[in-house]
Amino acid sequence: MLHTPKRWFIGRPLRSDRLGETLLPKRLALPVFCSDPLSSVAYATEQIVLVLGLGGLGLLYLTPWLGTAVVVLLVVVVASYRQTCYAYPNGGGAYAVSRDNLGVRASLVAASALLVDYVLTVAVSVVAGVAAITSAIPALAPHAVVLSLALVVLLTVVNLRGVKESGRAFAVPTYGFVAIVFILLAVAGLRLATGQTLTAESASWGLVPDHRTGGLLTVFLALRAFASGCTALTGVEAVSNGVPSFEEPKSRNAATTLATMGGLAITMFAGITALAVVTHVHMAEDPAHLIGLPAGQEQRTALSQIGLAVFGGGPAFYLLQAFTAAILVLAANTAYNGFPVLASLLAHDGHLPRQLARRGDRLVFSNGIVLLAAVAGLLIVAFDADVTRLIQLYIIGVFVSFTLSQAGMVRHWSRELRAVRDPRTRRSVRRSQAINATGAAMTTLVLLLVLVTKFTHGAWIVVIAMPLLFVLMLRIRRHYDTADAEAAPRPGGVTLPSRIHAVVPVVKINEPTLRTLAFARAIHPDDLTAVTVRVDPAETDRLFAEWVGRDIPVPLAEIDSPFRDIVQPLVDHVRSIRRSSPRDVVCVFIPEYVVGHWWEALLHNQTALWLKTRLLFQPGVMVTSVPWQPASSHAAMDPEDRTPVGVG
Amino acid sequence: MLHTPKRWFIGRPLRSDRLGETLLPKRLALPVFCSDPLSSVAYATEQIVLVLGLGGLGLLYLTPWLGTAVVVLLVVVVASYRQTCYAYPNGGGAYAVSRDNLGVRASLVAASALLVDYVLTVAVSVVAGVAAITSAIPALAPHAVVLSLALVVLLTVVNLRGVKESGRAFAVPTYGFVAIVFILLAVAGLRLATGQTLTAESASWGLVPDHRTGGLLTVFLALRAFASGCTALTGVEAVSNGVPSFEEPKSRNAATTLATMGGLAITMFAGITALAVVTHVHMAEDPAHLIGLPAGQEQRTALSQIGLAVFGGGPAFYLLQAFTAAILVLAANTAYNGFPVLASLLAHDGHLPRQLARRGDRLVFSNGIVLLAAVAGLLIVAFDADVTRLIQLYIIGVFVSFTLSQAGMVRHWSRELRAVRDPRTRRSVRRSQAINATGAAMTTLVLLLVLVTKFTHGAWIVVIAMPLLFVLMLRIRRHYDTADAEAAPRPGGVTLPSRIHAVVPVVKINEPTLRTLAFARAIHPDDLTAVTVRVDPAETDRLFAEWVGRDIPVPLAEIDSPFRDIVQPLVDHVRSIRRSSPRDVVCVFIPEYVVGHWWEALLHNQTALWLKTRLLFQPGVMVTSVPWQPASSHAAMDPEDRTPVGVG
Repeated sequence: MLHTPKRWFIGRPLRSDRLGETLLPKRLALPVFCSDPLSSVAYATEQIVLVLGLGGLGLLYLTPWLGTAVVVLLVVVVASYRQTCYAYPNGGGAYAVSRDNLGVRASLVAASALLVDYVLTVAVSVVAGVAAITSAIPALAPHAVVLSLALVVLLTVVNLRGVKESGRAFAVPTYGFVAIVFILLAVAGLRLATGQTLTAESASWGLVPDHRTGGLLTVFLALRAFASGCTALTGVEAVSNGVPSFEEPKSRNAATTLATMGGLAITMFAGITALAVVTHVHMAEDPAHLIGLPAGQEQRTALSQIGLAVFGGGPAFYLLQAFTAAILVLAANTAYNGFPVLASLLAHDGHLPRQLARRGDRLVFSNGIVLLAAVAGLLIVAFDADVTRLIQLYIIGVFVSFTLSQAGMVRHWSRELRAVRDPRTRRSVRRSQAINATGAAMTTLVLLLVLVTKFTHGAWIVVIAMPLLFVLMLRIRRHYDTADAEAAPRPGGVTLPSRIHAVVPVVKINEPTLRTLAFARAIHPDDLTAVTVRVDPAETDRLFAEWVGRDIPVPLAEIDSPFRDIVQPLVDHVRSIRRSSPRDVVCVFIPEYVVGHWWEALLHNQTALWLKTRLLFQPGVMVTSVPWQPASSHAAMDPEDRTPVGVG
Repeated sequence: MLHTPKRWFIGRPLRSDRLGETLLPKRLALPVFCSDPLSSVAYATEQIVLVLGLGGLGLLYLTPWLGTAVVVLLVVVVASYRQTCYAYPNGGGAYAVSRDNLGVRASLVAASALLVDYVLTVAVSVVAGVAAITSAIPALAPHAVVLSLALVVLLTVVNLRGVKESGRAFAVPTYGFVAIVFILLAVAGLRLATGQTLTAESASWGLVPDHRTGGLLTVFLALRAFASGCTALTGVEAVSNGVPSFEEPKSRNAATTLATMGGLAITMFAGITALAVVTHVHMAEDPAHLIGLPAGQEQRTALSQIGLAVFGGGPAFYLLQAFTAAILVLAANTAYNGFPVLASLLAHDGHLPRQLARRGDRLVFSNGIVLLAAVAGLLIVAFDADVTRLIQLYIIGVFVSFTLSQAGMVRHWSRELRAVRDPRTRRSVRRSQAINATGAAMTTLVLLLVLVTKFTHGAWIVVIAMPLLFVLMLRIRRHYDTADAEAAPRPGGVTLPSRIHAVVPVVKINEPTLRTLAFARAIHPDDLTAVTVRVDPAETDRLFAEWVGRDIPVPLAEIDSPFRDIVQPLVDHVRSIRRSSPRDVVCVFIPEYVVGHWWEALLHNQTALWLKTRLLFQPGVMVTSVPWQPASSHAAMDPEDRTPVGVG
């Protein structure tokens, strides 16, 4: 029944042998895997300015220094991950790398961090994109939650259609955003070079500090601002995770893409931060603290203030706004590429339900995509599509996985060193190891900073969620292991049951019952009994009379049921057969009414279902459903099955 | 798993042969079946005063006349229903009577009216009771919905325990209410006889009319007030419906109980109405229309104003309030006795799902009780526990069923007349018929009045709900009829299938698979194939190698699946077997993992379940589940099954 709309949304199924076709050339891989890190430059600068603003205008002089620190960190992390692309051509996410080098538990820590972060990427990016839209069109503001959910659905559908098509769909906004920001930087450079002054609308506004400063307090605020600026690094992981999706040579293409992304992101972030300083952008977390903001006016985002100052309104400014909104929404797409692949790896290793490891009709991991969308949707609803609150949960997971991944790479190179003798190769390996060691050290430091400065601002939620996920994944694996061990073939082999006792529960004599009896007789069991439960004595007597009258060649037994229950006496009956001959098997034949509409299920089969469930818990019992297909069940049938062939 | 709490709430199951024990003596039958009509005197007078008040104080002179009209109606209806008790000793609800005399469709109209009304009885009575409580303890007012739902749950549990116990539980409040009202009337009579004046607190308050009066408008308002006063008649039906629950002689005891109830209700209603006139109770639907009501004070109910005037505060007044609240809540119990019995009759006749016809552990119709509670709970939530809005939906159903029931009785006596020759008996039958004819005529008139005067005030909801229910019941019956006709044994009998083809889907070789193969071999099918779907070529090759290595004596076939789907290729395979030999039957053996915890269901059996569902739609296929019970399934097992006996 769900066939036609599914086809319409998702497209026709793709054959497995077309998997190779969905590999990505670099120019498509960039928008698919890099929209997240590229889009973060839209808000990273603003985060620094906002937090510094808590200490008043006096602290804004720190902006360039903090910006520089973020750039340095970005360089180190990109360099680090390029090593990973080469070392792990089959996908070197933090999970694979730490599993390989640090063991299962460390890899599960990384995995839970990544899973949480992918979900947050979707939620934060979509909500931020919607916020950009609603600040352009204030009439849409009350519908932020619905708009966000609609975008999540849109992204889900696009991704369910398969990787290649989404690469194409997302190229325009990503390249558009990069282009418009570079135009912004170029125009600003030109105007500054010709001696013009660029002034943000907020340059003249004052700011009431809401934080004491001086000494350690200033240091703490600066560190918190730096931690917030680190949102520029979110999503760098995605490329190394996606190496298998690149065209050959996979590793080299991935490393090149990563470097390109790094170059673009650094230039854009540095340029925007510089312009924020030059144009004197002043912002406050609480607009009431801004002196000079006209009543009723919302403060614009840092990037749009810069855009206004440079372009002075006009089409270029609106283009900047539009592309910003577009890339923010599409950044979520990075997670749609990363999450399902990671979930399938985890499912393959038995840490998540097996359904997540299976590729869907369009060769993507459909279940993972749907799961990601569902959880992100819940977060959006729970946090009422509020960017400020959601963003506090972000980056902890990023830096946990960064740290584990880099630490794992250090170990990886140590092992390589043991195998390599050639001095030139050894030198190159040592250099790679040094790069990853620097990365590991720096990301560890930043992780501690983020934890300390953001814990009370909402990060504690992630600090609780990650260990829960970690324990869940450990327990799922333990469950599968136990199940497999129990189910392992036993050395003695399986002995055939000595005899088969067939039991057919009967309520009244009709075609389904008679057919069930015929099927039961067809397997030639060692004995066959029809059994009825005496609830209403008059009815039971009528049944016996009809049974004799019709000359049915199967003995009919009755069971007493003083408590009017039908299921328990039948279960007891089956149990007593098994008890008297434990080497035999009991086969219970249950007629089942096949329903064509969901509501028919309320009118039929209630007792059959309950009886079946109870019997499955009995050792040495098999339960055979003999379906009865009335005309009404045809509604839910394949057309070719619609004319029942009939058994006799 | 639900066993222990269920026992604790509901009690141990009762044997069917104890059904006789739950019969009620008259002194218990009165509270069980009459708390509804008795409790209505607590608000019927108030309804008259409230509606008349819409026209200003000038119309209150009509109160005694309208009160008299209600009393006359009550006498007629009680007299009418006493005839029914004698004519239908097996339960003469409007449904049975109109089915017998007016045909199926009329009876279903009556049934839908009754079902709607039982639900409303629960909702209105519970909410009114809670309103009585919250006006005594204003702090509870914000929790009215939760309190109402808690009371519904309490009533449900008490009723699930069985009729007799609820009779006892409800005797005290019912008799207590009757007693305190009679004390009220006696004290008032004494004080008036000794020349004292009784004045309600509202006697001096003025009233702004919010309705034009004069001519037809006055007549319309008077009729609406009368219609509202008819709430005093709700629930009279219950006794005639419950005749089978009375001790022998059932009919006579029921008729006596009905007469007793009528006498009590009429005396109480007439007395309270007289006192409302004497003490000058002034009330307004909208408190803002009362001149003199102190700011911030809510107007008290009419009965409590009379109580204050007569008892002058003190313990007797609070006792009156407490018993009023108690009987209002317990009035809902009438519906708990009526609804499940009616639903079981309807289910027995195939108009409602069959589950409703089955008696539960404690010999009551548990499913009906739970259904009633659920729908009433929904209504309470939807109407925000607001008595004024809920009460507008009331009485339409009551008078529909009154009318049909009395009209049915008129026909019933006509048929009797045809059979009877003895002049004395004929005279008695003619007298009965006259009583019922009067009843039918009067209730028809009142029904029209209620419809016209209350339609726009909310009654339209019921006018929509009843036909929907009517159509639903017709369609359920038609569905069962079609199903039975299709399932009727065919004249030719069932031919045994010629051959059995057994198919065992295999994913990997483990104990559940091997056991399933052993069970399949044990039935000695004409041919047996293990089938695997080639999704991952490497895995399939490994499976074949192990199959050969283990020397499994069943051929293993593989099916290609270019789209990675497992279920569809297997269904196609089964279909092709059937197509090449349509007189044979295919038996598919599916290993099923028995789970002990609900969450394990997410980790196992997903494919097995889907495959099974799809196969049941195939004609000539039976599906055998071979359960595999791992240790973790023991959590949900009966202790005696916990040590698997093992098959070989």
